Amino acid sequence: MQDGNGLDHLAGERAMAQFDLQAMKVYLAGGQREYEISTKMAQLVANDPVFSKEDRVRLARKDLYKNSLRKAGHAWKTILEKGLSEVEGLKLRHFVDEPTYTDLHWGMFIPAIKGQGTEEQQHKWLPLAYKMAIIGCYAQTELGHGSNVQGLETTATFDPTTDEFIMHSPTVTSTKWWPGGLGKASTHALVYARLITDKKDHGIHAFIAPIRSLEDHTPLPNVTVGDIGVKFGNGGYNTMDNGFLRFDHVRIPRENMLMRLATVTKDGKYVRSNKPRQLGYGAMVFVRQGIVIDASIYLSRAVTIAVRYSAVRRQFGNKDEPGELQVIQYRTQQSRLFPLLATAYAYRAVGFWMKSLYADVMKRLNDNDFSTLPEVHACTAGLKSITTSVTADGIEECRKLCGGHGFLCASGLPELYAAYVPACTYEGDNTILLLQVARFLLKTLSQVSKVRPVGTAAYLGNIKQLSTQNCKVSQGHDWLNTSVLLEAFEARSARQAAAVALRLAKGSGSEAEFQENTPELVESARAHCQLILVSKFIEQLQTGTPEGIRKQLEVLCYTYAFSQLIDNAGDFLATGYVTGNQIALAKEELKHMFDKIRPNAVALVDAFDHTDDYLGSALGRYDGDVYTHLYKGAFKESLNDTVVVDGYEEYLKPVLTQNLWAPHSKL
Amino acid sequence: MQDGNGLDHLAGERAMAQFDLQAMKVYLAGGQREYEISTKMAQLVANDPVFSKEDRVRLARKDLYKNSLRKAGHAWKTILEKGLSEVEGLKLRHFVDEPTYTDLHWGMFIPAIKGQGTEEQQHKWLPLAYKMAIIGCYAQTELGHGSNVQGLETTATFDPTTDEFIMHSPTVTSTKWWPGGLGKASTHALVYARLITDKKDHGIHAFIAPIRSLEDHTPLPNVTVGDIGVKFGNGGYNTMDNGFLRFDHVRIPRENMLMRLATVTKDGKYVRSNKPRQLGYGAMVFVRQGIVIDASIYLSRAVTIAVRYSAVRRQFGNKDEPGELQVIQYRTQQSRLFPLLATAYAYRAVGFWMKSLYADVMKRLNDNDFSTLPEVHACTAGLKSITTSVTADGIEECRKLCGGHGFLCASGLPELYAAYVPACTYEGDNTILLLQVARFLLKTLSQVSKVRPVGTAAYLGNIKQLSTQNCKVSQGHDWLNTSVLLEAFEARSARQAAAVALRLAKGSGSEAEFQENTPELVESARAHCQLILVSKFIEQLQTGTPEGIRKQLEVLCYTYAFSQLIDNAGDFLATGYVTGNQIALAKEELKHMFDKIRPNAVALVDAFDHTDDYLGSALGRYDGDVYTHLYKGAFKESLNDTVVVDGYEEYLKPVLTQNLWAPHSKL
Repeated sequence: MQDGNGLDHLAGERAMAQFDLQAMKVYLAGGQREYEISTKMAQLVANDPVFSKEDRVRLARKDLYKNSLRKAGHAWKTILEKGLSEVEGLKLRHFVDEPTYTDLHWGMFIPAIKGQGTEEQQHKWLPLAYKMAIIGCYAQTELGHGSNVQGLETTATFDPTTDEFIMHSPTVTSTKWWPGGLGKASTHALVYARLITDKKDHGIHAFIAPIRSLEDHTPLPNVTVGDIGVKFGNGGYNTMDNGFLRFDHVRIPRENMLMRLATVTKDGKYVRSNKPRQLGYGAMVFVRQGIVIDASIYLSRAVTIAVRYSAVRRQFGNKDEPGELQVIQYRTQQSRLFPLLATAYAYRAVGFWMKSLYADVMKRLNDNDFSTLPEVHACTAGLKSITTSVTADGIEECRKLCGGHGFLCASGLPELYAAYVPACTYEGDNTILLLQVARFLLKTLSQVSKVRPVGTAAYLGNIKQLSTQNCKVSQGHDWLNTSVLLEAFEARSARQAAAVALRLAKGSGSEAEFQENTPELVESARAHCQLILVSKFIEQLQTGTPEGIRKQLEVLCYTYAFSQLIDNAGDFLATGYVTGNQIALAKEELKHMFDKIRPNAVALVDAFDHTDDYLGSALGRYDGDVYTHLYKGAFKESLNDTVVVDGYEEYLKPVLTQNLWAPHSKL
Repeated sequence: MQDGNGLDHLAGERAMAQFDLQAMKVYLAGGQREYEISTKMAQLVANDPVFSKEDRVRLARKDLYKNSLRKAGHAWKTILEKGLSEVEGLKLRHFVDEPTYTDLHWGMFIPAIKGQGTEEQQHKWLPLAYKMAIIGCYAQTELGHGSNVQGLETTATFDPTTDEFIMHSPTVTSTKWWPGGLGKASTHALVYARLITDKKDHGIHAFIAPIRSLEDHTPLPNVTVGDIGVKFGNGGYNTMDNGFLRFDHVRIPRENMLMRLATVTKDGKYVRSNKPRQLGYGAMVFVRQGIVIDASIYLSRAVTIAVRYSAVRRQFGNKDEPGELQVIQYRTQQSRLFPLLATAYAYRAVGFWMKSLYADVMKRLNDNDFSTLPEVHACTAGLKSITTSVTADGIEECRKLCGGHGFLCASGLPELYAAYVPACTYEGDNTILLLQVARFLLKTLSQVSKVRPVGTAAYLGNIKQLSTQNCKVSQGHDWLNTSVLLEAFEARSARQAAAVALRLAKGSGSEAEFQENTPELVESARAHCQLILVSKFIEQLQTGTPEGIRKQLEVLCYTYAFSQLIDNAGDFLATGYVTGNQIALAKEELKHMFDKIRPNAVALVDAFDHTDDYLGSALGRYDGDVYTHLYKGAFKESLNDTVVVDGYEEYLKPVLTQNLWAPHSKL
């Protein structure tokens, strides 16, 4: 029983690879410069003991939180001392890999001031925020109000006699609930509240409310604030102080209302500005692009662990070979694991495409061209929804693919899941987002004879053709054609959308009828988004992929498309576009793709370039020395601090010796 | 903001119910006597502060474990003091609701001695085990060996000179790993090891190895034993001391080998007994019946929480009604939630059927009739696999259906998931079990012209008819016929099995070809099991269900069958048995069922009769007073012990005041 001795237990796997690993690393990083920054920051974090994740799943909440404050402070210090750029600083925090208050400060508080504050307000608040002389959070959701922002109950009532707003939480359900960084760290909160002037309710607006003393960090008078409690999982999101906040008639200056889009004057008049509201869309596309890239990264971490472990783990065998087989050899394992590997690649490609979409949107907004916004809104809403849901489930699937050992925190997978799964809820609940996509599809279809659909909805312009022509595949290799695949996804999506649109058209157009058809509408939106994902993955490959990696990316692209086709075969078949036999042919082609992935599988996850530190997994170690490290790791468990466990004398010995304690004892 | 004031916020929901709640409770409990015992034990646990689950997700592992020892001891004391029967004791431990060492002692160690020990051995060990003078665990899996028992590496080498076995762990991978109760509690382990006599390997046998001193609980010489570390989730399975164990040439007496089926004589001869090996099947059916009932119980807990919270939670609204709508009104919510409610009922019904199956098997074994064993083995393996996988995913789905608040441990759902999910791995990995079912189906089909299939496979006798006749449904209400539904599930399963059998028949019969087709084989096995579940739910309803609940059970049965049909529409369509239009009709019928469930939904989860204590969920409270209790609960979070958080001085103040600590400080 020895420690890692420098041996690469996966060397044989790596020797089989058939592509240019370095080129793939650079491709996945998004370019040479991004690759270099990533590598540098990953190493910086890995080599700094303050950032160690070693104990995270073993710490009690207080210690866990304190240590996360320590890391966040140390990250900030490192950024300042080393004079890191904004991009480098962001990457550094990414590799620290721990949800913490600075995420909300930089990711929500500052952007909200930039987007909703006047220039004067930005001048006042941003310098303080940039040097972290104040720490801000984003207080939108309430105990009784999540997705429906218009239902928020917190009030900001203007008092012209003092030129102040009175912030108030009138009910239990109006308690601000969930904002990250609010619970224990923030000094300021960006609070969404109903603006009331002269007894008139002007709806939801944003206010900057100081909540803790800058002297001693105590909550300000009449502010009740704290942490909402333990969340799912060990470590995971528990490093974050998601908080609650109640105001009992707390006064803040009038100028703390963010007034870019609407103003309250000294005498209490409410005035809307003439700034176009659409400008916020740019930020939304930017955020959602980041979410899709994050989905790819999280999924790639889980897949890296599962692929490496599947190459190390052996179970059962057959008569033809001695010893047990690597579980990665089994078709049942491949058919669950390789599509997830392909999905991580697909989301990376789609994320890259979204970068160009963002650039395009910003250019148009600058030119006051708002024509593509509905399509862009629907597309990015749908992609956020699908990629986060699939990634959350995919991480769990990878955990299951690691068998029993995946259930140990030492696998890294439980914590990865717990840290990721909130992405399905924040920035828009995934079901509600799909309904937004569905409404867009209905509208597009209703206007299709008059308005030519654009962008990712352009295919709906061919709805007639897509509704009549069926799939022409007659042999397996007919599927190896991106046009054939694309048309299948287009036809399926168009037909599903048309079918539900037709049902609704027959009705009276009431909201109740829309509600009645929401399950089908959600399915239709999902079909549309799956088409986008497949088509943008294909599109990215066709635009200048380096020679040394193109073939592998094609294999992954087909793997992704075929597995999507097969997983949703019910939809494709029900629309009548494909036959059962054509699905069976696709299943065979998918197995051929698995055979092509198999020798490259370990190298394809190596290309994600995750350090052992970042993965934090005994199962996913680069050197494959899994069992030694699982065994050694067990000795760090606190229960093993003593050979006889604490509690033996009180609770085990009395059982074993039939001397059960007297009723008056501690029990 | 007030505490629970006795108001029933869900009274309106309960008033809508259209069935006999008390009759349903008795039905779900399995009879009047079972209902009374359950109620009594649930109250006993709920009213005893020692059993409180209050702090569980907040305790560090050592404290968590110590407290679980305390509860296990207290449960044992309660059982002895109150003179509870075996059934009552089991129920009591069930409601204590915490995985602990006694589960393995009573559930695995003792049954293994009963099943594999000679009468003499039973006389020696069972009295000690029954009074817990020894604590035993079940040490089968090893670090490198899970499902493949034949691959275990631990050796038990007989030394005739001392009449002893030498237990040894030759490699890291041979380390016993995972056994519950082994890590810190057990004094004895039932160890599976390769029996070696006279240099001959006789394969895997069971041995009783003392591992800890009965004097002071220290590990015995040359035994290395401890806990394997933190597992997925807060609380959850971390109350269990899953352990590792290594032997370094540890000697145990020859008579510690369990010798019912094979003996080693004093002079080292290996002798097989003539006892029929099939007798173990009875225990297996019994265990799997319990697993299916447990699946129903766990799923029903998650469903209870999600249904009640969905009736309390309001989001958005429509123009027709004031205020926001209960989320249970939304079709998207219903279409995910109600099928899970129906599934919990389905598994209960199937569990009841399995009780009668067990009785039948035991009777046959007594009569030396082993003819039904292959069918029973396949059926119970498949049901274990499907019900545990669906339940694990279903609990997570219920958590998602509770939106953001479901992510809080206060919802009870994270811990429920973490505690349940190991069921997918123990007692047989779910994928491997499905492959066993598939092998049975292939064998049955290959003999169908000669041997009439029995029991749950009987329908395969009609394979010709099922392969040619298609579904005759032409209007929605044609689906409201259990024969029509059953035939659909039979035809789909028979066709899927026949298709893969045909492909294999064309080949050479090699193991490699079998492996190549394992994804389809798994699908075919799943289809067969889904048929069993639907058919047994139907069968149970047709055999004497009380009048006052029959109609609701029928609605749930149709809901279950339709949702299974729709979720697996791809299979049904691909086999050609149904058309896309018939699927669409089933979707409409399913919505009608949702309308019938809706007014009964809260009462249907009330019928599971879970106490608030057992549920441990602020969202799933009986009185629906969700928000008050979420808010009050937050004040118990340890981070809220002080208003200024521990760590402020060291790690937040330096950031806020731009006085970053010197490099030589603690950071």
